[in-house]
Amino acid sequence: MNENLEPMRHTLSHILAAAVKELYKDAKFGIGPAIDNGFYYDIDFGQTKISDTDLLKIEKKMHSLIDRKLPMTKRKVTKTEALGWARDHNQDYKIELIEELPESDPITFYDLGEVFTDLCKGPHVKNTKEVGPFKLIRVAGAYWRGDEHRPMLTRIYGVAFSTDDELNAFLKQQEEAKKRDHRKLGKELDLFCFSDLVGAGLPMFTPRGTELRELMANYSLSLRGKEGFKKVWTPHITKTDLYKTSGHYAKFGDELFMVHSQVSGEDFAMKPMNCPHHTQIFASRPRTYKEMPVRYMEATTDYRDEKTGELGGLSRVRSLTQDDSHVFCRRDQIKEEVKRLVSIVKELYETVGMQKLRARLSYRSDEDKYLGDKKLWAMAQEQIKQAAIDNNLDYFEQEGEAAFYGPKIDFMAEDALGREHQLATIQLDFVMPERFGLEFTNQKGEKECPVMIHHATLGSIERFLSVFIEHTGGWFPFWCAPEQVRVLTVNNQINDYVSQITEILDQIILDQPLKYNELRYTVDDSADSLGKKIRRATEMKIPAVLIVGPKDAEEGIVSIRLRDREEKVKLTKLTEFLKGLK
Amino acid sequence: MNENLEPMRHTLSHILAAAVKELYKDAKFGIGPAIDNGFYYDIDFGQTKISDTDLLKIEKKMHSLIDRKLPMTKRKVTKTEALGWARDHNQDYKIELIEELPESDPITFYDLGEVFTDLCKGPHVKNTKEVGPFKLIRVAGAYWRGDEHRPMLTRIYGVAFSTDDELNAFLKQQEEAKKRDHRKLGKELDLFCFSDLVGAGLPMFTPRGTELRELMANYSLSLRGKEGFKKVWTPHITKTDLYKTSGHYAKFGDELFMVHSQVSGEDFAMKPMNCPHHTQIFASRPRTYKEMPVRYMEATTDYRDEKTGELGGLSRVRSLTQDDSHVFCRRDQIKEEVKRLVSIVKELYETVGMQKLRARLSYRSDEDKYLGDKKLWAMAQEQIKQAAIDNNLDYFEQEGEAAFYGPKIDFMAEDALGREHQLATIQLDFVMPERFGLEFTNQKGEKECPVMIHHATLGSIERFLSVFIEHTGGWFPFWCAPEQVRVLTVNNQINDYVSQITEILDQIILDQPLKYNELRYTVDDSADSLGKKIRRATEMKIPAVLIVGPKDAEEGIVSIRLRDREEKVKLTKLTEFLKGLK
Repeated sequence: MNENLEPMRHTLSHILAAAVKELYKDAKFGIGPAIDNGFYYDIDFGQTKISDTDLLKIEKKMHSLIDRKLPMTKRKVTKTEALGWARDHNQDYKIELIEELPESDPITFYDLGEVFTDLCKGPHVKNTKEVGPFKLIRVAGAYWRGDEHRPMLTRIYGVAFSTDDELNAFLKQQEEAKKRDHRKLGKELDLFCFSDLVGAGLPMFTPRGTELRELMANYSLSLRGKEGFKKVWTPHITKTDLYKTSGHYAKFGDELFMVHSQVSGEDFAMKPMNCPHHTQIFASRPRTYKEMPVRYMEATTDYRDEKTGELGGLSRVRSLTQDDSHVFCRRDQIKEEVKRLVSIVKELYETVGMQKLRARLSYRSDEDKYLGDKKLWAMAQEQIKQAAIDNNLDYFEQEGEAAFYGPKIDFMAEDALGREHQLATIQLDFVMPERFGLEFTNQKGEKECPVMIHHATLGSIERFLSVFIEHTGGWFPFWCAPEQVRVLTVNNQINDYVSQITEILDQIILDQPLKYNELRYTVDDSADSLGKKIRRATEMKIPAVLIVGPKDAEEGIVSIRLRDREEKVKLTKLTEFLKGLK
Repeated sequence: MNENLEPMRHTLSHILAAAVKELYKDAKFGIGPAIDNGFYYDIDFGQTKISDTDLLKIEKKMHSLIDRKLPMTKRKVTKTEALGWARDHNQDYKIELIEELPESDPITFYDLGEVFTDLCKGPHVKNTKEVGPFKLIRVAGAYWRGDEHRPMLTRIYGVAFSTDDELNAFLKQQEEAKKRDHRKLGKELDLFCFSDLVGAGLPMFTPRGTELRELMANYSLSLRGKEGFKKVWTPHITKTDLYKTSGHYAKFGDELFMVHSQVSGEDFAMKPMNCPHHTQIFASRPRTYKEMPVRYMEATTDYRDEKTGELGGLSRVRSLTQDDSHVFCRRDQIKEEVKRLVSIVKELYETVGMQKLRARLSYRSDEDKYLGDKKLWAMAQEQIKQAAIDNNLDYFEQEGEAAFYGPKIDFMAEDALGREHQLATIQLDFVMPERFGLEFTNQKGEKECPVMIHHATLGSIERFLSVFIEHTGGWFPFWCAPEQVRVLTVNNQINDYVSQITEILDQIILDQPLKYNELRYTVDDSADSLGKKIRRATEMKIPAVLIVGPKDAEEGIVSIRLRDREEKVKLTKLTEFLKGLK
C-alpha cells in the first residue's frame, strides 16, 4: 500500500471539515479520522438536515480548497491556548476533548492554510496538492463518542485512493456489492426470512433456502464421510458443569445464552460450540489405540449471545449452524489427519468456485499463556507446516497467533469481488482432552491422553451462505440451485410433450459433486404470457429454463435458456445435456 | 376385562398387609390400592430392611390366609371410633388419614375375617376364596404421600389376574420387556449415551445411534416429501413474543425453558413445538389460493422442561426431536390433506413392523372451551371420519377429547409385546392461523384465513426409538440396522477374496424403503478366533454376518449367517441376496 495513503486520507477529513465550515457557519466538529479505504468526519449541523444530495456541493467546495494548494502546518499549543481557541470558535466537542488531555503534554494543532484549524495529532500530507482522487459516498448518524445518551452527530463518509483507477475500481466494487447484498437477494430469491416475533439474528429458512443449506451441509459432510468421519448427534443445551470442566465458563461465561429450568431450578447453557459434547461421546466407552483416530462430525446449531446492533442478515447471527468435526487421535497421527482435512477444505472451496485460498498457520510465541507440552507444540507446528506444503497451500506463518490450547490453520477464501473471508479452520487442541480426562489404551497397555483436532469446513453455514450468495450474485452453480430447471410452456396445446419431458426429468439423478441428487424442477404451465414466465424465471435466477412450444414438440427438441446462452437440445440428449451442466 | 379383577386386586393388597402384620408385628401401614395389573401396599417396617428375597415368605403367608376362606366385611364407624382404633394399633399413618376425613360422613372399615382390619372405601370381593392367582414382584421405596420431606416407606408390588394363563403371560412379557429394555440395549448396541456433565434427559447419540435416528427421520421425511411437503429450517429459540401471540405463553409459560440474554437483556424461550415458527415462514410473503396447500416439514429438536424424576432413557427426554409438519390449506382441502397424512402414517408403521394401529378420532363436546366456528368443527369432524373410513382405519370416536383449537386423530401402535404406544398424530387447528393473522387471497380476490394441520409421523424420534428398540429387541430390520453386514475372516490367507467381496459390497445401494442407501458394512479381519468374532457380531445384533474362509474362496461362495438361518450364496448372487433381505 502507498505509505502516503493514510496521511492523505486524514488530510481529506480536515479538508471536508473546512469545506463544511465554509458552507455551514455554525457547524460544530467532533472527530475525523482516516479509515480503511477513506475517511469520515462527525459533525453537528444543529437544526440543518444534511442528506446524500448535499454531498456534491460539499465535494465541490473541497475541490476548490484543494486547488488552492494550501499547506498543512503543525503547531504546538498549551492546554490553555487550545481551550481558548475552542471556546472562541464555539467548538463544544473540541472543548470536551481538550479538557480530557493531560495538563503536561504539549497539544498539537494543524492549520490548513489560513482556512481551517483543528486539534489533531496527525500525520498529514504537507500540502493539499498531494491529495489524490476521492469521493464523498454517504451520510450516516453517529452518537457522539458512541454513547446513545449523547447527541446524534452527522457522519460524512468519503473514500480516497492514490489513483483514479483505484478509486473507480473501488466504487464499481461497492456498486456490485450493493446489487449482490445477500439480504436483498435472500428476499428476492425467497431463501430466508426474519420475524419481529422471533427476534433479530434468528433467521428462518424457507423451502428454497433450506434446500440450499442442506445441499451445502450434506456436501461438506459427504467429503468428510468419505474420509472416515461418522455423524453424531448432541443436544443444544447442557448443564453449565460441562463448560466449567472445559474451561469455557470461566473464559466466555458472559457470552453464553443461559437457560433456566423453572421446574428443577437447574442452570443450563445453550451450546456455543460442540467440542465439549463430543468429548462425552468419546468418553462413553473404553477406547484402544487400534480404533484411533475416532472422527466425529455434526452439522448442528450453536447459539451465541451477540449484540443486537451487530446482527445483520446471515453474516452475523445468534443461531449459527456449524459443519463441525472433531478428531481424537494419537500424537503420531496428527500430520495425516491435518493433511486429510486440508485436502477436504481445498476440494470444497474448489467446488464452490472460491479456489483462491490463503492459509494462515498460527504458532505459539514465547509467552507463557500457552498450555501444553512445548515439545508437543514444536512437533505439531512442524506437522501442520508439512501438511500445508504437501497440499501445495498458499500459506503464511504467524507466531503468537495460536489459540492457548494449540496451533491452528485458518483459511481465507477470496470471493468474486476480491474480498477475503475467513471461513474454514483446523485447530489442534492439547488441553481439552486433558480437562475431560479422556484416554485410550496405547500399544503398551498404558492409558494415554489423545490429541483433539477441531475442524469446520464451511465454518458457520449461515455466514458461508452470506458470502456464497454475494459471491455468485444469486446465480448458484447448477448442482446446488434450489430450483435447477423450470419448464415454461408456450401454450396448452403441448401438454403431452411436457409430460414426455417431465418423465425424463424425473429419472435424472445427479452424482456430482454430491451423490444421489434427484433433479429439482418445476413446470410453469400457467396461462400467463411466455414473456412474463421468462421474466419470472430470470428473476428467480433459475440456471436452466426449458421453453417448450408446438414447434419444439414437432421437432422433438427443447429450447434451453441458460444464463449465458441458449441451446436447442434433442429430447434424446436432454439427460446428458443437463447432467453436463456446472 | 373381568369386572371382579379390581376388587380382587384390592382385596389382595389387604391380604398382603395382613400377612405382613403377622410376620412383622410393628409394621405401620400407609395406603394399598389396586393398580393396573395388580396392587401394592406402602408399609413402614421401622428398622427392618425388606428386600425382594423376603417376598417369598410374605407370599406364602398370604396363601395360607387365602386358604382359610376369610370373609371381607364392611362396617361403618364414627370418626372417634376410627381414631380410637388407629391409636390403639399404633397406626400413625392411618391416624393422619382419618384426621383429614370430614366429621359428618360415615367412615368405612373392612375386616378380613378376624385377622386384619383396615380403613378402606372398598370395593372388595366377599371372601378370600374369590381371589385369583397373584405374585409379589418387587420392593421399592416410596415417600409417604409422595413428599420427599416425609418418611420413606417400603412399597411392595404384586400382580394379579383372573387365570394362571394370564398371570404367566404377563410375567413372561415382563421378563421379555426387561431383556429388551431400550436403556440396556442402547448401551449394549452403542446407540446413545448420557453424561452427568450434560445432564439428565439430554441423550447424546453415538455414530450407530445417529445412523439409526437419521434413517428413521429421513424415511419419515421422504414419505412426506413424495406428497409435496417441503423442508424448512427454524431456530431453536425465539423471543417470548411469539408465544404470547400464539397463546402458548399464557397456557404453558411455566413449562418453557427460559433463555436469558446477558448481552441485550432480552427474554427468549426454547421452542417446545414448531408451529408458531412455521406460521412466520408462511407469513413472510403474500399467498394466493393457487399455491395452497402450503406444506412445511422439519425434523427439529424441541425442548421441554420435564421433571428430573420423570426422565428415563429415551422414553421421556428434555430434548425431543419431532418429525413435525404443518399444512396451511383451504377449508375445502381438509379431507384430502388428512387422507394423505393417514396413508403416510399407515405406510410408515407397516414398514417398521407395527402394522396393528388403532386411531382415536377426538371431537368437541358441547362445552364452550372450544374455539372456532361450530359449523367448521362439524364439517372438519365429518371430513376426518371420512378420511379414516377411506383409509380403512381401525378407529373409535371420542367426544370431548379434541384440543380446544380443533379435532384430531391420535394413533396407537401395538408393539411385539402387545403394548400400545401413542405415537403419530394429526391435529386440525382453526385458532393459530387467526392468532397470527395468516391469510391468502382466495378465488374471489378476498383475504381468507387458512386452516392449519399439525402432523408428526414418528412423533418424537427419541420416544419412537425407545419403542422401536424394545419392539425389535435390538434386531433392527435390515434396511435400518446401523451396521447391516459384517464380514468375518477365518484367517488372513484370503485377503484377496475379501477384497473381491468388499468391491461388491461397495456397489450395493438399497432403494427400499429409503432410496439411495449405500450398504453399511465393516470387516473384522482381526487376529481373534472366528468364534470370538462371531460372538462379537451376534452381541451387536448384526443382521447379516458374512463368514469367509479358504474353502469359500475356492468355491466362490460366501457363508451368510442371518438371525434365523444360515445360507451359502454364490459371489455372483451376493448383491441380489442382500438386496432381498428385509
